[in-house]
Amino acid sequence: MNGAESLVKTFLANGVDTVFANPGTSEMHFVAALDAHPEMRCILCLFEGGASGAADAYFRMSGKVAGTLLHLAPGFGNAYANLHNARKAPSGIVNVVGDHATHHLRYESPLKGDVVGVSQAVSHWTRVSPDAESVARDGADAIRVARSGNGQIATLILPANTAWEAASHVAQSAAPHTLDRPSEAEIAAAAKALRSPGAALMIGGAALHGDLRQLAGRIAAKTGARLMGDTLVARQSRGAGVAMLDQLPYPVAPKIESLKGTQTLILVGTHRPVAFFAYPGKPSRPEPAGCRIDPLCAPEMDIAYTLQALADACGVDAHVQPKVYPLDLPDLPTGDLTLEKVGQAIAALLPENAIICNESITSGFTVMPPSLTARPHDVIGGTGGSIGLCLPAATGAAAACPDRKVLALTGDGSAMYTLQSLWTMAREQQDVTVVVFANRGYQILRDELANVGVNSYGQNARAMFDVHSPELDWVALAKGNGVPGQRVTQAEAFVDALRDGFATSGPSLIEVAC
Amino acid sequence: MNGAESLVKTFLANGVDTVFANPGTSEMHFVAALDAHPEMRCILCLFEGGASGAADAYFRMSGKVAGTLLHLAPGFGNAYANLHNARKAPSGIVNVVGDHATHHLRYESPLKGDVVGVSQAVSHWTRVSPDAESVARDGADAIRVARSGNGQIATLILPANTAWEAASHVAQSAAPHTLDRPSEAEIAAAAKALRSPGAALMIGGAALHGDLRQLAGRIAAKTGARLMGDTLVARQSRGAGVAMLDQLPYPVAPKIESLKGTQTLILVGTHRPVAFFAYPGKPSRPEPAGCRIDPLCAPEMDIAYTLQALADACGVDAHVQPKVYPLDLPDLPTGDLTLEKVGQAIAALLPENAIICNESITSGFTVMPPSLTARPHDVIGGTGGSIGLCLPAATGAAAACPDRKVLALTGDGSAMYTLQSLWTMAREQQDVTVVVFANRGYQILRDELANVGVNSYGQNARAMFDVHSPELDWVALAKGNGVPGQRVTQAEAFVDALRDGFATSGPSLIEVAC
Repeated sequence: MNGAESLVKTFLANGVDTVFANPGTSEMHFVAALDAHPEMRCILCLFEGGASGAADAYFRMSGKVAGTLLHLAPGFGNAYANLHNARKAPSGIVNVVGDHATHHLRYESPLKGDVVGVSQAVSHWTRVSPDAESVARDGADAIRVARSGNGQIATLILPANTAWEAASHVAQSAAPHTLDRPSEAEIAAAAKALRSPGAALMIGGAALHGDLRQLAGRIAAKTGARLMGDTLVARQSRGAGVAMLDQLPYPVAPKIESLKGTQTLILVGTHRPVAFFAYPGKPSRPEPAGCRIDPLCAPEMDIAYTLQALADACGVDAHVQPKVYPLDLPDLPTGDLTLEKVGQAIAALLPENAIICNESITSGFTVMPPSLTARPHDVIGGTGGSIGLCLPAATGAAAACPDRKVLALTGDGSAMYTLQSLWTMAREQQDVTVVVFANRGYQILRDELANVGVNSYGQNARAMFDVHSPELDWVALAKGNGVPGQRVTQAEAFVDALRDGFATSGPSLIEVAC
Repeated sequence: MNGAESLVKTFLANGVDTVFANPGTSEMHFVAALDAHPEMRCILCLFEGGASGAADAYFRMSGKVAGTLLHLAPGFGNAYANLHNARKAPSGIVNVVGDHATHHLRYESPLKGDVVGVSQAVSHWTRVSPDAESVARDGADAIRVARSGNGQIATLILPANTAWEAASHVAQSAAPHTLDRPSEAEIAAAAKALRSPGAALMIGGAALHGDLRQLAGRIAAKTGARLMGDTLVARQSRGAGVAMLDQLPYPVAPKIESLKGTQTLILVGTHRPVAFFAYPGKPSRPEPAGCRIDPLCAPEMDIAYTLQALADACGVDAHVQPKVYPLDLPDLPTGDLTLEKVGQAIAALLPENAIICNESITSGFTVMPPSLTARPHDVIGGTGGSIGLCLPAATGAAAACPDRKVLALTGDGSAMYTLQSLWTMAREQQDVTVVVFANRGYQILRDELANVGVNSYGQNARAMFDVHSPELDWVALAKGNGVPGQRVTQAEAFVDALRDGFATSGPSLIEVAC
């Protein structure tokens, strides 16, 4: 057994059985080791940003840590942007990065680079294995770290000789680090505050979906506090029967408006709200002056314990039911397609238990609201503000949940960042329907330029905001990646395409021109 | 004037008039400033790796520093891989990275990240502007750094408030730092060594192209030393009339073979040769035991001075002529297309003064040799071993040299990394002919797995090496980006497509299936 095989066996022995991979020439022993263990699932991504985004969504939907296989510093660089999103989720990922053999690093070879430096700029934990005998232990430690704190980025750098030299053992990962919990006094104080006028409970992480979401809704129902969520969240339950929640809008003015009257904000699993960016003369903190912020349970603390303890302290019993979204499916739209009609069609047709990967950004302001009362589903979306998450996330969600329908909603500018993931959907025959909103530009930049006071602009701004001359042809881009696609301009055609996408297995793409 | 405008004016005042851009929501004041100065050329790339690769090639072909405009830490991450290649070239680039306003950085906003950390992992110089008044001076310093040492990566991070607050001046960049030179004694010793048996002169950087390349050839002719180049070089003159040179092959065994008998290796503008990777039981240093290495002039030193001083010390006068490649154009090939025939067709048709951007990797072993005797041209290629350079580099070369034909030769695996640059070629109507070698996989990985002793492999290795099921359709991918393309299987069709590509302006793509 060599070091590489000791790592593959350690992964499998600890339940890490999926790797999103872009190996390069320095990871050949690792590839050979994976090849000897077909029980390890290897998914090829054609670009490392596809691998990191997939591993992120895989964790969000399954709670399981996946591996990525990256190639030296540049490979890690390519994965960086979606690791940034994963860090903000937070999601647990183990990155395995091949590096030069220890004795080769003294030379100025082409691929020599600062792997440790680029890793530390986004990982929670970075370690370089010193020798083959250490690889199994280091791999088990990386898994432990990735599973701790509700999900962390662990990066294990393997000099090539640690992969090819002899190793003697497989290692067991220790249990994740114990999650910090608020004290009983803090719980009691928060429970009391929730009953006060202008109180709001803002939840994040695991509190946003499944049973915990409903529990949060019951706390709100019992105390009269307002249940809220931040603008960008990793995953949430949504649709009929789900506990209602007010999500903070993205633009700063409505964000401030939304928090008006809030006197106490109790945070469980989320950071205090903040403006996405600073703007001249506008505040970074959106809450009103004098609003008390209670950071009861940080995102890396024990969210399930905190919510249950809070419910108990508030006297939430079996009779307390949350206020939930009703089932209210719109009629199927007809005529010229608009974003409103796209939203209606999605709301009407979305299958129960579907997963929406949402990076529709400006289009989403209009498209998303109708599905609040659709059949129950999950939504995963951007967390770190770095575009290019949607298509990789769809591949990761589909890998995690092969029995669920995935709907990917993406702007054209975002989709272009990581369109290689379309190929992975086709290779893996994933059940993903992709909707690309072809507004031919970075609409959010047009909006943001207006936000800084520029309302008319010239050739250089247009050159950087507009994605036409030529127009991207998403049907062709999909075809190039092996995914069937069509462009629609009529509501009936969109309805048919969406229905087909949900009805058939395998990926498809719909380019929405409106 | 605000800080952003003071930077744009400083760029223009110092001759930096081209920016490869992927701005985000934090760079709006910079966009507004660029918009007010249409004499600044802004080229949109749809992905930051396209911007950094273009800026690299722009410098290689023009000697001029271009700017990039990147969006916080994730945007820099996307640019990282091609900045790695640029650092190895070396090329001078000024990266402008927007960050949150200074007063906003204390909050956990989604896009908060370690911009300084990720920058320092690849830049020679990183600075955060503290206030708007400092931006012009910092920008001028960045330009100076980028122009020093024969080209360096300078990264200027601009918190948003430094862009929008008032600034009063424009700054002048100081001259680049003086280049170190070898001593007269070192020159004299090297000149003597060049006449000794088994002597070789290995050149890099500016010595590989133009007049300096010919001067190096004259030194070799005068002294009897062998003229050599390393495996990966940023740019070189090539074709008829160019001084002949032996370039080190990529695989380690022929690399070692190529250096057999070398007793002294004098380095001008290049590092000592090294195996691309370490392999079990094979040396990192390819030169024979006892070979003396003379690092006369490092890549960041004064290459032109050194070569001229060496020529003078060797007594190279006007009568000494280099051994040059003859003009020897092959016949146009016919019949089923092979890589040999692709190479012949390129050699026969390549226009004088064309620029080849070469990332053909394994296909290149066969495709490139025939054009050694083609009409004179330049070749730029991979320097840091990070794939995905070719298409961005083609856009940068075309921007630098609009009157020259550009031929981009790329493997399918490499092209997929940064295919967004096809769109930039179409948007800018660049005169680029792209040839994609569709071998349906990472051929170099198949070779490297064999190098580590694995000759038959199973499902997981195949899953990571083979890019079929589905096959990428490059004609569709080109169409999706607004570039006309065709797939050819016959030599006659390839000849026609290549001839058309060179004859017409604007981009086109040829998918080679062989």
